[in-house]
Amino acid sequence: MSTSKPQLRADAARNRQRTLEATRVLLADPGAVITVEAIARQAEVSAATVVRTFGGKEALIDAAASGLLAPLVRRARDLLSGMPPEEALRAFLGEMLVFQAAHHTMNTQIEALSLPATEAEEAALKQVVLDMVVRARDAGAIRTDLDPVVTMTLIGECTYAIARSRAHAPGLAADYLTVLMDGLRPRTPTAR
Amino acid sequence: MSTSKPQLRADAARNRQRTLEATRVLLADPGAVITVEAIARQAEVSAATVVRTFGGKEALIDAAASGLLAPLVRRARDLLSGMPPEEALRAFLGEMLVFQAAHHTMNTQIEALSLPATEAEEAALKQVVLDMVVRARDAGAIRTDLDPVVTMTLIGECTYAIARSRAHAPGLAADYLTVLMDGLRPRTPTAR
Repeated sequence: MSTSKPQLRADAARNRQRTLEATRVLLADPGAVITVEAIARQAEVSAATVVRTFGGKEALIDAAASGLLAPLVRRARDLLSGMPPEEALRAFLGEMLVFQAAHHTMNTQIEALSLPATEAEEAALKQVVLDMVVRARDAGAIRTDLDPVVTMTLIGECTYAIARSRAHAPGLAADYLTVLMDGLRPRTPTAR
Repeated sequence: MSTSKPQLRADAARNRQRTLEATRVLLADPGAVITVEAIARQAEVSAATVVRTFGGKEALIDAAASGLLAPLVRRARDLLSGMPPEEALRAFLGEMLVFQAAHHTMNTQIEALSLPATEAEEAALKQVVLDMVVRARDAGAIRTDLDPVVTMTLIGECTYAIARSRAHAPGLAADYLTVLMDGLRPRTPTAR
């Protein structure tokens, strides 16, 4: 009896991990409809276990989706603290394109759900891109004639659009970053 | 009796016009589900008239959607024949943003349908933007280090993304065009 409790805790932790991992796999699958049954099948656990482990489908998807975004937020902050802000912006957008291309239907899959942890990570992601923009402006590395929030929004919208259409045109992602970063450069009299 | 045939033809032409116009209104309405019944209600004709006039819902939507795109194609060609290609490109994208913002759910509404006339207009639209890009390159007005088809694709994807999100950030459309056109400029040694 004294050994059953740690064993139960180990089982619960393993089921939690498998369920989370299964949900992340489904979030990267454009054809997946994310139901408790689909998660249970993918995780090879029972539907009851899926519900019990996280207390419901939304809480589970929130944990999985926010768990996918959290490393991106940390990565963006690390880049920003380790190199000039405009280089951090370019490097991060390149990585963001790869992530979004691999998860290009995730937004549609989760749009109707209430996911507070995921929304918090999305807000943190916008904030760190805004920080990159503001610091690059302050450093004189990008143009100062555009509103930083508008710049952050247009970067986000265009990056997402290019990520979703990457497969259609090889070279699109790299050329997009080139045009975007050149378009964001400070205006010089000779370039005008 | 001798007057009934012109009358019938006039009725048919009027019904055709009302049905087309109703379909165009629904294509600009994000909340609309485009059914024969919805078109009939909007046009104030019977569902049987809607079907009879165009021989089916897809043929009707194809006529309405291609009829919306055809003036854009003509406009793009007119701009290109009347001014330098990079100015034509910027002017046309500005007008395209307005059109797409007003019809930002049209793609979703029609994506599952087979619409040959609409697809032909979409192809013509891509071709004229490609012509603008190629002629602006030849004129030395935009950079030559990017593949023209990739450039056309990234312009199209980003313009569509910005058009759909216009409402969220005032100034986004104008700033987008500024960043895009500056990003497309020929590279000069001083700008590098």
